Amino acid sequence: MAGSSIKPTPLLKDELDIVIPTIRNLDFLEMWRPFFEQYHLIIVQDGDPSKNIKVPDGFDYELYNRNDINRILGPKASCISFKDSACRCFGYMVSKKKYIYTIDDDCFVAKDPSGKEINALEQHIKNLLSPSTPLFFNTLYDPYREGADFVRGYPFSLREGVPTAVSHGLWLNIPDYDAPTQLVKPLERNTRYVDAVLTVPKGTLFPMCGMNLAFNRELIGPAMYFGLMGDGQPVGRYDDMWAGWCMKVICDHMGWGVKTGLPYIWHSKASNPFVNLKKEYNGIFWQEELIPFFQSAVLPKECTTVLKCYIELAKQVKEKLGKLDPYFIKLADAMVTWIEAWDELNSSEGKPAKLPNGTAK
Amino acid sequence: MAGSSIKPTPLLKDELDIVIPTIRNLDFLEMWRPFFEQYHLIIVQDGDPSKNIKVPDGFDYELYNRNDINRILGPKASCISFKDSACRCFGYMVSKKKYIYTIDDDCFVAKDPSGKEINALEQHIKNLLSPSTPLFFNTLYDPYREGADFVRGYPFSLREGVPTAVSHGLWLNIPDYDAPTQLVKPLERNTRYVDAVLTVPKGTLFPMCGMNLAFNRELIGPAMYFGLMGDGQPVGRYDDMWAGWCMKVICDHMGWGVKTGLPYIWHSKASNPFVNLKKEYNGIFWQEELIPFFQSAVLPKECTTVLKCYIELAKQVKEKLGKLDPYFIKLADAMVTWIEAWDELNSSEGKPAKLPNGTAK
Repeated sequence: MAGSSIKPTPLLKDELDIVIPTIRNLDFLEMWRPFFEQYHLIIVQDGDPSKNIKVPDGFDYELYNRNDINRILGPKASCISFKDSACRCFGYMVSKKKYIYTIDDDCFVAKDPSGKEINALEQHIKNLLSPSTPLFFNTLYDPYREGADFVRGYPFSLREGVPTAVSHGLWLNIPDYDAPTQLVKPLERNTRYVDAVLTVPKGTLFPMCGMNLAFNRELIGPAMYFGLMGDGQPVGRYDDMWAGWCMKVICDHMGWGVKTGLPYIWHSKASNPFVNLKKEYNGIFWQEELIPFFQSAVLPKECTTVLKCYIELAKQVKEKLGKLDPYFIKLADAMVTWIEAWDELNSSEGKPAKLPNGTAK
Repeated sequence: MAGSSIKPTPLLKDELDIVIPTIRNLDFLEMWRPFFEQYHLIIVQDGDPSKNIKVPDGFDYELYNRNDINRILGPKASCISFKDSACRCFGYMVSKKKYIYTIDDDCFVAKDPSGKEINALEQHIKNLLSPSTPLFFNTLYDPYREGADFVRGYPFSLREGVPTAVSHGLWLNIPDYDAPTQLVKPLERNTRYVDAVLTVPKGTLFPMCGMNLAFNRELIGPAMYFGLMGDGQPVGRYDDMWAGWCMKVICDHMGWGVKTGLPYIWHSKASNPFVNLKKEYNGIFWQEELIPFFQSAVLPKECTTVLKCYIELAKQVKEKLGKLDPYFIKLADAMVTWIEAWDELNSSEGKPAKLPNGTAK
């Protein structure tokens, strides 16, 4: 039975990197110190490389600015966004760990309804280490949580679940709204603590937010490309969405699961809705075509690895979305460049990407 | 925007019937009195017609026993289960109301985490009167609840949602487990109050429990047939499951939504796991074939009404599941009989079934 297999959550100290796009807020790391100090941080600076990022003492970190990205990737650095937090995906690429947790610097430690500080990372690890159930919906939510199980009518053959690739956490206080909703509801705050984790069913797309997100890099890393945003690009704030749609189509194809729900972080600051609107307006329009595209995307059987799936998806993006706007031709090319760069940095000498799950390290 | 359209919940006093299969527990109606007294009850007695069911004063009800069912349906009464709570679907058929709420007599009023008694019916009405979002998953759950909305990345063209056909409520205390899980975890209780309502996505099946269930009878009533269970049948405890799978396939085809989550009731009593195992064992085995059948079932475009959908589904059950066991041939025939009886009782003189939504009454 599901519940009886629950053990203390391993901390995965040597198997997880925390990736943060630029730290503007000095309180950020101090607040997270008790939870993050034992992990390795990868900070990817999104803007002017001449500016210094201050990291408080006691943290183990590496920091990459634009000059580093250019030096490491050479011409392939073109696939990494500049002046946009989408650059964080460079951190996924240079990590050597099995798991990634990524968080924004305006996200603080939230409290559960009993007033206890939430260890977001521990909950993400729970989510990633327990299976997902994308093939049938369990009405008591995650059947692998303590005190829960599969309900009457859940097929026994599906109770083993499938490997979990992604854990999508949520936000108390400022909800992740688009610019139009921000403008219409400037005062709305998310105060509802929903004590649930659930699997996004197979065949269903969702809006993946990069604010509070963990994933199994060995499984799905190459699909977590945050696209071309920011400086010189006609769109912003669709980086995590793009990654989420690509990732979900590939997880569905590979038979892996995506969980959403717990853990919550405290999102402290609403971004400027006018600036956001300027970044989003193309995305809001394009999205109406993107969703049907991803909903109907089919990956052929020959796509047996994430790298192959992603290259195939890039091809379909070029063919089918290229007509929508030349941006998607550029994006499709960048998707291929991203995979080439990933492969270069990750494929030699027993690194995770080309090894079967579990044999790396 | 979603949240701004919220108004006080109408009580639908003249538009909703409460259907209860046999009341063995005298406390049941007393406990629900403040919430149920203003509604009309339809009680369907599942066993010996000579036994009297006591209904406390002050309730407006009609009661049907087996003799009544036989008298009203004639030979078509064969489609209604005997000595099993599956007989409750007879109540759906004889109701003249737009909405149905059905509840078991071992379900009591639950309390929310603040200690307040939960008005389950009011929450079901909220669920049924607000749209569903089966085409794309919203990570903050029901976007139509107060304090919630669609998150960034949710396509604007999908924010109107679709009509909600079913509201599936949950249970605190005794979870709805199958016999094997009951046997393995006799002491497990559901104590987790998950403050969420969500749409079961299109294409995803779930285990629909009949304990605490509401639906729009005008929309989906004819699909809520609880099958052949109990006396003389080789299976039990799959009545609500069967209805749920048929209903979900039809809702997906018709473009309607199904919600699950709130409200909770307090499920007071675990049924006997040994008796349950005897009822369930065929179902547990058959289910492994039923789920792939329902997952791949396609209804042709010509099926433009629930009645047509259901007849088509009955045909497919006979063709594809008849090989599994002769029971499914009998069940398929009973499905057709059910529709004939439904049509007879509901189609004449401006009754709901054949009229477009909203024009009845």
